[in-house]
Amino acid sequence: MRYFDHMATCPVKKEVLDAMLPYFSEDFGNPMSLYPLGQKSKDALEEARAQVAALVGAKPQEIIFTASGAESNNTALRGLAYANRQKGTHIIVSKVEHHSILNPARILEKEGFAVTYLPVDKYGLVDPGFLEKAITKETTLISVIHASPEVGTIEPIKELAAIAKKHGVLFHTDAVASAGNIPVNVEGLGVNSLSLSAHEFYGPKGAAALYLKSGTRIVPLIYGGIQESGRRAGTENIPAIVGMGKAAELAAAAMAGNMERLAAFRDKLVKGATEKITSIYLTGHPERRLPGHASFCVEFIEGEAQLLMLAAKGIYAASGSACSSKALKASPVLLSMGVSSELAQGSVVFSMGEENTEEDVDYLLDEFPKLVNRLREISPYAKGWSGVKEKGACIPKN
Amino acid sequence: MRYFDHMATCPVKKEVLDAMLPYFSEDFGNPMSLYPLGQKSKDALEEARAQVAALVGAKPQEIIFTASGAESNNTALRGLAYANRQKGTHIIVSKVEHHSILNPARILEKEGFAVTYLPVDKYGLVDPGFLEKAITKETTLISVIHASPEVGTIEPIKELAAIAKKHGVLFHTDAVASAGNIPVNVEGLGVNSLSLSAHEFYGPKGAAALYLKSGTRIVPLIYGGIQESGRRAGTENIPAIVGMGKAAELAAAAMAGNMERLAAFRDKLVKGATEKITSIYLTGHPERRLPGHASFCVEFIEGEAQLLMLAAKGIYAASGSACSSKALKASPVLLSMGVSSELAQGSVVFSMGEENTEEDVDYLLDEFPKLVNRLREISPYAKGWSGVKEKGACIPKN
Repeated sequence: MRYFDHMATCPVKKEVLDAMLPYFSEDFGNPMSLYPLGQKSKDALEEARAQVAALVGAKPQEIIFTASGAESNNTALRGLAYANRQKGTHIIVSKVEHHSILNPARILEKEGFAVTYLPVDKYGLVDPGFLEKAITKETTLISVIHASPEVGTIEPIKELAAIAKKHGVLFHTDAVASAGNIPVNVEGLGVNSLSLSAHEFYGPKGAAALYLKSGTRIVPLIYGGIQESGRRAGTENIPAIVGMGKAAELAAAAMAGNMERLAAFRDKLVKGATEKITSIYLTGHPERRLPGHASFCVEFIEGEAQLLMLAAKGIYAASGSACSSKALKASPVLLSMGVSSELAQGSVVFSMGEENTEEDVDYLLDEFPKLVNRLREISPYAKGWSGVKEKGACIPKN
Repeated sequence: MRYFDHMATCPVKKEVLDAMLPYFSEDFGNPMSLYPLGQKSKDALEEARAQVAALVGAKPQEIIFTASGAESNNTALRGLAYANRQKGTHIIVSKVEHHSILNPARILEKEGFAVTYLPVDKYGLVDPGFLEKAITKETTLISVIHASPEVGTIEPIKELAAIAKKHGVLFHTDAVASAGNIPVNVEGLGVNSLSLSAHEFYGPKGAAALYLKSGTRIVPLIYGGIQESGRRAGTENIPAIVGMGKAAELAAAAMAGNMERLAAFRDKLVKGATEKITSIYLTGHPERRLPGHASFCVEFIEGEAQLLMLAAKGIYAASGSACSSKALKASPVLLSMGVSSELAQGSVVFSMGEENTEEDVDYLLDEFPKLVNRLREISPYAKGWSGVKEKGACIPKN
């Protein structure tokens, strides 16, 4: 197996699983319990909170544990919008947000909020000037993704959040694809809230967090007990949370080395693929992108067909976002970047992680062009194709 | 350690953890992915769905996986109320519901819904006659807990749900404390939705489910990807879900034997405690209660003091509900049963599970009376105490 789908999920590291194991059957207490077994879980919970806080430069009390990046995003978008409803009912989100931001935004629209969907350029970048123009007296919340899992582009969050702050508007960023993989610092970014998810940096599924800046009011999504200081009810998933803490610690330690290595793999992959394959377009920004992330649109063939052919060669990759792989619709992210709906169908995303080797990249560069050729031979879309090489044309068509 | 707090949480069984282990680092794929690694996770997900469905007599497609009982309850109460808002805006919940029902009900009140809080008798039982009288033309949803984790009482859900059905009203039951411990059959009970949680029956924390009867419309709580047929977004927590499936299978197989054994332990504990200790009152119904569940109010001393003294002897128990152990407020459940707020402060809950032995019960019956005496010697509340024995008076005061 050559795994090129780290944006969909990562394997749990051995050290992470080892840290989790005692909390399933031995130190299994409920952290709300008063006896020592409960206290042990409570201590583990708070240690993990400090570890996760350290990864993003937050204070431990600013970390709310949730069960998924989607839950964190839903909590932030709706919870902050509701908490500030008296102040105003206008929110702004970018067109390249994850579904777990876009879909709650649509719900808020149904509930009487006005939502502005910010356009992006051909690289998927939000223009700070556009953001500033979109802010009205009614605006209470802006949400822009930190890095896109689909196209890898890293947004200028610091600039965007500064504009929000100037206008007294809250700023949320979805850092699920970036946290643990590139430096993410809540103070440096200047955001009020930020989502991150453990399984994107070799932690377990089922553990995620919402950073919420001290003093920021929020309406909870899940009501019940007083867990997470009354901001998220439900028995804490201690083993998974402990795993997230450990994964955060390991991610921080390995980050600089991984970034350098994966950026080199990415650049080799982009260079190799665009040289060897005609009519292939890099999607997202050529430099301002996640280190291990190379995403393309391959003209005249479909993403799903590519994935199946790649899988037959033991190469596991994605098309569009993980959540929409089975939805079989053209990616709204690509469409918003000006990619035609035909070309968007040819989307393929390779996301690498620290267990990938240069040999994986070489193998991919050997197999990928062959299977593209094979698919084009049988593709009905390729009939009108001129066969002209378009070397280096690695930007999406407008 | 003598663990008497299975309502707070249970240890994960070895077979359950063994079933989970491959899904952390080997078969770690995202079930939304198209390649074989993703398909393996998808298959595991659907096998677990069938196992959980079998535990409660549901069809697999009627099971929605969530991350906690609280999330299941929030989803049901708010999701069903919102989905039927055009029909009516009155809902009914009992006064002995878990916080994860009562608190969402209060939110619905703030949002313009009318909520009737059904009274209970001194055993904590809801009267079907009261329920029928409370239903209006505006009523769309009723929620009554299946069994109380605090007082052990099992509600007459079948009778209550039949009344709801007669009036065309949806019926939800919170079976978090009961599912996996006593027979729970959604068809037999006649409910439209039901919550259950894995860590209440030796499965892992972080996995829970909402049964939703086919054809029942619901508004999701978490929006995003199309997981769980679009009813609950977020990457599926495959290891935990696999564990829940395995735990469901094991619970069903062990249920009859456990029930018999634990009911005998419970009866011995209730008999012994009420004989050996004066001014102690069994809370909840004397017969119609969870097998391993014995809950008391001990006059003149506080629950927390009892828990700490018990813990010092290696006995781990609870006071009130797990979620409110640290809230230090008199339990609303006990108050609604007519227990005075003074007596409610003396609440102690022993909940047993299959790893408990008769020797644990004997040890508890040896230590518990001694520490009650010691606490009463130093308790300011005991000053006015007559010292008269009130043997057998094991019902709460009205």
